[in-house]
Amino acid sequence: MTIDVPTTARVRIEQALDDFFADRARTAAAYGPEFSDLWARAAEHARGGKLLRPRLLLEAVDAFEATADPRDPVDQGSVSSLAAVIEILHYAFLLHDDVIDGDLVRRHRPNLIGTMRDLHPEAPGTASLHWGTSAAILMGDLLLSSALLSCARLTLPAAVRARVLDLVDEAITETVAGEQLDVGLGNGAIVPELSTVMSMTTLKTATYSFALPLRLAGALAGAGPRTDRILAGVGRDMGFAFQVQDDLLTMFGDPAAHGKDVLSDMREGKQTVLMSFVRTTERWHEVADVLGASAISEADADRVRRVVQECGARDFAEHLVAERLREVVVSLERSQLADPVRRVITDCVERIEGRDA
Amino acid sequence: MTIDVPTTARVRIEQALDDFFADRARTAAAYGPEFSDLWARAAEHARGGKLLRPRLLLEAVDAFEATADPRDPVDQGSVSSLAAVIEILHYAFLLHDDVIDGDLVRRHRPNLIGTMRDLHPEAPGTASLHWGTSAAILMGDLLLSSALLSCARLTLPAAVRARVLDLVDEAITETVAGEQLDVGLGNGAIVPELSTVMSMTTLKTATYSFALPLRLAGALAGAGPRTDRILAGVGRDMGFAFQVQDDLLTMFGDPAAHGKDVLSDMREGKQTVLMSFVRTTERWHEVADVLGASAISEADADRVRRVVQECGARDFAEHLVAERLREVVVSLERSQLADPVRRVITDCVERIEGRDA
Repeated sequence: MTIDVPTTARVRIEQALDDFFADRARTAAAYGPEFSDLWARAAEHARGGKLLRPRLLLEAVDAFEATADPRDPVDQGSVSSLAAVIEILHYAFLLHDDVIDGDLVRRHRPNLIGTMRDLHPEAPGTASLHWGTSAAILMGDLLLSSALLSCARLTLPAAVRARVLDLVDEAITETVAGEQLDVGLGNGAIVPELSTVMSMTTLKTATYSFALPLRLAGALAGAGPRTDRILAGVGRDMGFAFQVQDDLLTMFGDPAAHGKDVLSDMREGKQTVLMSFVRTTERWHEVADVLGASAISEADADRVRRVVQECGARDFAEHLVAERLREVVVSLERSQLADPVRRVITDCVERIEGRDA
Repeated sequence: MTIDVPTTARVRIEQALDDFFADRARTAAAYGPEFSDLWARAAEHARGGKLLRPRLLLEAVDAFEATADPRDPVDQGSVSSLAAVIEILHYAFLLHDDVIDGDLVRRHRPNLIGTMRDLHPEAPGTASLHWGTSAAILMGDLLLSSALLSCARLTLPAAVRARVLDLVDEAITETVAGEQLDVGLGNGAIVPELSTVMSMTTLKTATYSFALPLRLAGALAGAGPRTDRILAGVGRDMGFAFQVQDDLLTMFGDPAAHGKDVLSDMREGKQTVLMSFVRTTERWHEVADVLGASAISEADADRVRRVVQECGARDFAEHLVAERLREVVVSLERSQLADPVRRVITDCVERIEGRDA
């Protein structure tokens, strides 16, 4: 089962993204053809994601609304804008991630760097790659700025707006802290202890992908600190499980379905829970040469897969996913969250459990 | 004469920057030693600039205040925050600029990339440089986000806050559009016509360095569209003159004073008004090989200097600076700006005329 977004949510999110990019395209037109072209390509590349973050936001907002005082409805325009904002923030981080990792492909096709590079194949030496990389840095900056300025312009009560800004601020800080850990773990600047890799995973992905949408929905509904703490906790647990499952899918799943490249992750020396578990076993010496090596073959990848399987790393990771998702369910049962909100979260847990891409 | 900031303004700006970074340091402490260390180093590297942007803001705010209704004072806390914001935005752009240009030195010492690289000299291959470059990308993102979130949190009347956000948005868009032009001109993706180089210069530097501080001061004072148009125009003209003068200083001035490296600009193939003027003359073939070449000697730089001088490019650029600054004075005379505001602008013009660094 892949994670499909229901049509109503998809249409609404895509409309919000259309509005965001149309507004930016109008502004960009004044600054020459290259700048307009860059925006047009970014608008295209920003699509095609799973939209899981904005979807979770919309579902959680609806769930809170279902139990709220109908005389005090949340501003739906702000909700749509926020849905676009979190998808745009996600894409901005992907762009800078790709620059840092030197990746030229995403979702089976050239990413923005690769596309921009291919526009100027005649440029001498590394100039065409430089044009692509620079475009990704600059577009990441523009998307990050535009998304934050959209947040700043939301027409919400002052206290709610302040809370939304704090949550976005915290999520960006955690994501970047996680990304810095990821880079340091990958290039040897930071010792890849299992615990460090686990906290990197939470910081880099779980916070902004799961905790942020849930907490934003809570903030829009005026939820208090106790609810916020629960949403933050279950969001982090779901996000952690999601990411570890991602690592499992990248290593053992069908590349045609998930679109990730395990060889490129190995070349970059990516530290995952799987690999740092192997490091704690006596089988480590059998695969240590592969991580970060410049030339890796399918046979090398198969060797790593076999060791990951046989040393218990795969089992460990699968149990970790199951355990975290169970913790989410236990937290929900203990919580006083309203039924519709619980249902959004348990649905999300089920989608994570069942996904293959 | 170098441009010194008067002590009162300097103390106030540095206090605002201290507050900004102290707040961030407290947050960063929760995310491990590498992240705290990165913030501490960024706080240090962000200092040492000429502070010309926040200084211009403070002076312009004071000038507007001097003529305003004393019963309706501008919120000085917001003014200080904005002073920090525009210096931080400036530094965030410098960081990403350095990544794009591959620069490791700024103001005669290692920049953040160089400093972070040197922390891990033992890392294999290019891993230590990658650690530095990644740190600069990530810290640029954090500073950009934090600065924008500071703007979003300003306690200002709704209409003023909206105006401030629009001005910052416009300035970021123009700066990035200019940076993209700069990259394309440098690597051959965009034809280096003199007019394109001139508009790149305005977009990349003039808007956010001069027009933005003046217009923000106007916005805080509730200035109308006519005043805003004048401030935008004189800001762009001053900024353009400042940048062309920067190019002149980099080529003909004392490196010990200005701290720029003309050889590295030539290696990167930087297009300046000087070089694109030479391109329109028959002397171009004498220097065409230098721009973008990987190995450039002092003798090459001398040859370029001689040609720039003899073909009239230096004269052209010096006249351009003088003409734009004269236009500023003429605009002021025709305007209905209050005397204190005019004086801030003419003082700034005089500082630009007299600077050697």
